[in-house]
This record gives sequence, C-alpha cells and structure tokens, in this order.
Amino acid sequence: MFPKNRRSTLPSMKESPGVVDLLGVLAYAELSAYARMTEDAATLAPSLADRAALSELAVTEYAHFRLLRDRLTELGADPGEAMAPFVAALEAWHAQTRPSDWLQALVKTYVGDGIAHDFYREAARHLDPSIARLVDEVLVDEGRSQFAVERVRAAIEADPVASGRLALWARRLVGEALSQGQQVAAARPELATLLTESLEEGKADISRLFAKLQEEHNKRMAAMGL
Amino acid sequence: MFPKNRRSTLPSMKESPGVVDLLGVLAYAELSAYARMTEDAATLAPSLADRAALSELAVTEYAHFRLLRDRLTELGADPGEAMAPFVAALEAWHAQTRPSDWLQALVKTYVGDGIAHDFYREAARHLDPSIARLVDEVLVDEGRSQFAVERVRAAIEADPVASGRLALWARRLVGEALSQGQQVAAARPELATLLTESLEEGKADISRLFAKLQEEHNKRMAAMGL
Repeated sequence: MFPKNRRSTLPSMKESPGVVDLLGVLAYAELSAYARMTEDAATLAPSLADRAALSELAVTEYAHFRLLRDRLTELGADPGEAMAPFVAALEAWHAQTRPSDWLQALVKTYVGDGIAHDFYREAARHLDPSIARLVDEVLVDEGRSQFAVERVRAAIEADPVASGRLALWARRLVGEALSQGQQVAAARPELATLLTESLEEGKADISRLFAKLQEEHNKRMAAMGL
Repeated sequence: MFPKNRRSTLPSMKESPGVVDLLGVLAYAELSAYARMTEDAATLAPSLADRAALSELAVTEYAHFRLLRDRLTELGADPGEAMAPFVAALEAWHAQTRPSDWLQALVKTYVGDGIAHDFYREAARHLDPSIARLVDEVLVDEGRSQFAVERVRAAIEADPVASGRLALWARRLVGEALSQGQQVAAARPELATLLTESLEEGKADISRLFAKLQEEHNKRMAAMGL
C-alpha cells in the first residue's frame, strides 16, 4: 500500500526525535506572534498606515505557521499535540513582554523575529531534510521587519532620551526569552539535543546556543541604534 | 504625460463621489474584522485546531483589506483618510458585540461575513468598474465561513438550550449593525446615494437596503438552525 520510495521521502520521526518538538515550538511561536502583533497593531499603531504595516508582518507569521502545521501533518504528527508543550512558555513570554507603546511594539517585533530566524538557521544547520526546505521558505521573508528598524532609528534621532528606555526594553525581551528557553530545554531534552548537535561537534551545550542567540541579538540592537 | 486611454481605465472620482467612501468603509470593515477574529481565535477557541480555523478566516479578511487599500491608492485616494470616517462606527459595533464564548464568536463571524458579502454584492450591482473586479476577488472566498455554520449546528444539536441564547445574540449582532449603518448613512450621504441607486430604480431609499440586509440575515440564521 505504501511504496518504499514514497515513505523514504518522509524522514522517520524515530531518526530525529526532536523534529516534531522543533516544528511544534516554531509553529506555536508563529501562531502566537501573529496574534500578538495583530493586537499590538490594532491597539498601539499611531496611524492606519502603521497599523497596516505591522499587520502585514503579522499575516506573514501566520503564513509561516501554516507551513509548519502542514509539515507536521505530513510527518504524521498532530499539530495541536506538537504545539501543546510550548504554549505555556510562549504565552508567559508574551505576558511578560506586553508593549506599552508603539516603539516598544516595533522593538519587540524586530527582536522576536530575529530570535526566531536565528532558531530557524540553527535548525537548518542540522540539515534534517524535513526542515531544510521549510527554513528556506521562511527565511525568504527575512528583512520584512526592517521597517521596524528604520522607524525606531528615526524615533531615537528625534528623541535621544527614548534610546535608553528602549535599550532596557530590548534587554528585557531577550532576557525573558532566554529564561523561558532554558525551561523549555530542560523539559524537552530531545529538542535541546537536536539544537545543540547542530552546533560544532563536541560542544553540545545548550548554553552555547543561548550565547550565540545573545550575540546575534546584540548585533540587532546595534542596527537599531540601541 | 498621461495618455488618455490609460486614464480612462481609472474611473473618475468626480463621476462616483461615493466610491472612495465605499472602498474606505469596506477596507476598515475588513481590517477590523481581521483584528477582532484573530483576538477571538486566540482567546476563545477550545482547541488549537479551532484557533487555526478561525485565524485562517481572519487572514483572508486581511487579504481583502489589502485589495481594497491598493484600489484606493490606484484611485489616488489616501487609504487612511478614506477609512477614517468609518473607524468609530465599526469599532462601536465590535465593542457592543464582543463575543463571550466560542459559539458567539462563530455566530459573529458568520453573520459579519454575511453582511459584508451582501454589501459587496450591492456595490457590484452598481457596476462601477473600479469595484466590479474587486468584488469578484472578494466573493471567491465566500463560503469560507461555512465551517462556522457546521460547528454551530452541531453545538445546537448537542445542546438545544444553546439555540435560544444564540438566536438572541444573532439578533443583537444585526440590530447593532443596522443601527451603526443608519448613522453612517446619515453622515455620508454620497455613500448612501451610491448604495441606494444600485437598488431598483425609483426606490432609492436606504431603509430598503437595510430591509434587504435583514432578509438575507434571516436566511443565514435559518442555515445555522437559529
């Protein structure tokens, strides 16, 4: 009933036990980012044009969610079950990083998008065939959050006092992300193994992954002038 | 600089003074529906699969918003300015019809989508060339909210007591919509004229349009078993 060559195009979940976890955490990250960015756009944008610009990005996150969900289904996994273990951590992150104004919302968008892309790249490095094509599709949209950088830079130039406040905000965003990430890594050892194995051989340590995310984050802060 | 044949493909705003209003009200209706449905999906859906189903519809509304916004830009209008006169009425409708549970959210989706499609059809009847193609593109997605009908019918079969409560809710949804619609029609006479002229000749009366929307609404209620 199932010709061998067809099955061989689907990677076995047994070979990569962390793959469903990886797709699940990324799927819920995209689904929750879509919902939160939509809300931030509707409640914090200073104009209808700004609201549309952030909503456009939110809808892109939803399109990524769709790719991940469909990939989970193709792998024979239930998308809801795959996402479930990560709902609490991601919702906690959002609850602890609710922006109180438009600039905070833009910084959160850029920082969150950046961390997500770093994650996708780590996944791609692992070169699991179920991930590689998907990562290409997602990373096509990299640079979409560039509008946030430009607006934040302009706001800082116009009001240098805002800079210190936003730098603190960005530090809080990444700090809360790493704190939730550490708890997830502890609770899902197979996911942690998959991600750390993708780093240089012999240095399979989750703290190295987090150090790398922090380093990339610092580059993004510099790009925003923070 | 502007060859005549190119300009002639764009209808003059002077010829149809209500067209920018019509595109503006539809654009904000889609943008606000997208945001509210996204929020309802994130806060009320009983499962991640239900959340995805309603989010899928919300993202479709955003795609319609994009079509309308781009059409406004093509006509030389500022989309933000075109939407501005309708923000208060549509936000008031959403504030007065905030669903308190998942079934109310589904009924609101189906009712709101239905009223919007009736509106698009009235606009198409007017046969303004700037609208006709756009309406075709939007109405392709008609039927997408059908999943809401099926879930509401199943819920009523399982719990007949829910039926009376949801029937009242649906009546409130359409009542508040017609009440806001009357205020908009009074404030934007050119829009009212455009829509009433599209009805049978000699009967250019906004109350006839509303009676027709109510009639279509009643058919949708019957489809849901309410």
